[in-house]
Amino acid sequence: MRAPVALEHAYRLINHGPVTLVSAAHGDKSNLMTVAWCMALDFTPPKLAIVLSQESHTRSLVDGSGELVVQVPPRRMLDVVDAVGNCSGARVDKWARFGLAPAKAARVQAPLVEGCTAWLECRVLPKPELADELDLFVCEVLAAWADDEAFAEGRWREDLPEPLRALHHVAGGSYLVDGKQVRARRL
Amino acid sequence: MRAPVALEHAYRLINHGPVTLVSAAHGDKSNLMTVAWCMALDFTPPKLAIVLSQESHTRSLVDGSGELVVQVPPRRMLDVVDAVGNCSGARVDKWARFGLAPAKAARVQAPLVEGCTAWLECRVLPKPELADELDLFVCEVLAAWADDEAFAEGRWREDLPEPLRALHHVAGGSYLVDGKQVRARRL
Repeated sequence: MRAPVALEHAYRLINHGPVTLVSAAHGDKSNLMTVAWCMALDFTPPKLAIVLSQESHTRSLVDGSGELVVQVPPRRMLDVVDAVGNCSGARVDKWARFGLAPAKAARVQAPLVEGCTAWLECRVLPKPELADELDLFVCEVLAAWADDEAFAEGRWREDLPEPLRALHHVAGGSYLVDGKQVRARRL
Repeated sequence: MRAPVALEHAYRLINHGPVTLVSAAHGDKSNLMTVAWCMALDFTPPKLAIVLSQESHTRSLVDGSGELVVQVPPRRMLDVVDAVGNCSGARVDKWARFGLAPAKAARVQAPLVEGCTAWLECRVLPKPELADELDLFVCEVLAAWADDEAFAEGRWREDLPEPLRALHHVAGGSYLVDGKQVRARRL
């Protein structure tokens, strides 16, 4: 079930470098795209940095609204993650095409994508020079959520069933699935 | 063996969001630190974005030299990765303390850390306002290398032995090891 995540733990939802889905809405349009280049940037208030290419339809919605949701799609969404990254919302209604259900976010207009394991509702901090030159967006996380089957008490559960594990983009249609969680010994 | 990676494939060395080691040198000092917040930012010429906290000794070397090396440490270096992230080069010679061997880089003064599976030699693009406000550094990758047992023909090999797999930081001393590589079906 989707449960709130304390803002000081929000960075942990993406600390392991998973591939993400980014959703945005502006006016009567909404869309989502697959984004590998996303990282945490600060703890409290939580910030993240993300790259949204200029040609993408989602980028135009983010430019218009100043808001987005970053979500972590699990292994069970592999085929959709890849497909969403390989077509444009300018031509296809990705929600309908891939059977994705939007849900209402708490703090932003952008919808949450059902089926993911984590959601970070963000507002874009106005840094137009970064967006223009580098396609880089710095965002403040306003609200965070996670599927409590996958993430609880401020961290990803150990030994998650494979369908709930995160994906990491390798190249083309190839992804690495999270393996086991290990603990370092103190040297 | 360390082999050159074509610059157009450099982003793939970190595309899966692994935890990294960052080394830097300035004057007669060199140091390294563990960094989870690092992502690719562009393909050609390759760029990356990385967060280096103001208190770290490595950050002061990067500020002085404008150069750094980002490297991907594999599973077999788990304990060192965690230890390097939990002490300061201002007080400890991490190279000696953890038995790490520096190797000469091709394009920068910062040393390569032996035992890693990938290396990206970088120069920092001068954006002092980003460093000051967000601890964020935008770098151009000048040269890239990978252990050819782990990465070949422009991509991470499938079914790597566990000691060569990448790590992803969860929280505290916990890391996720890369699991299997999967391929999406076309929808």
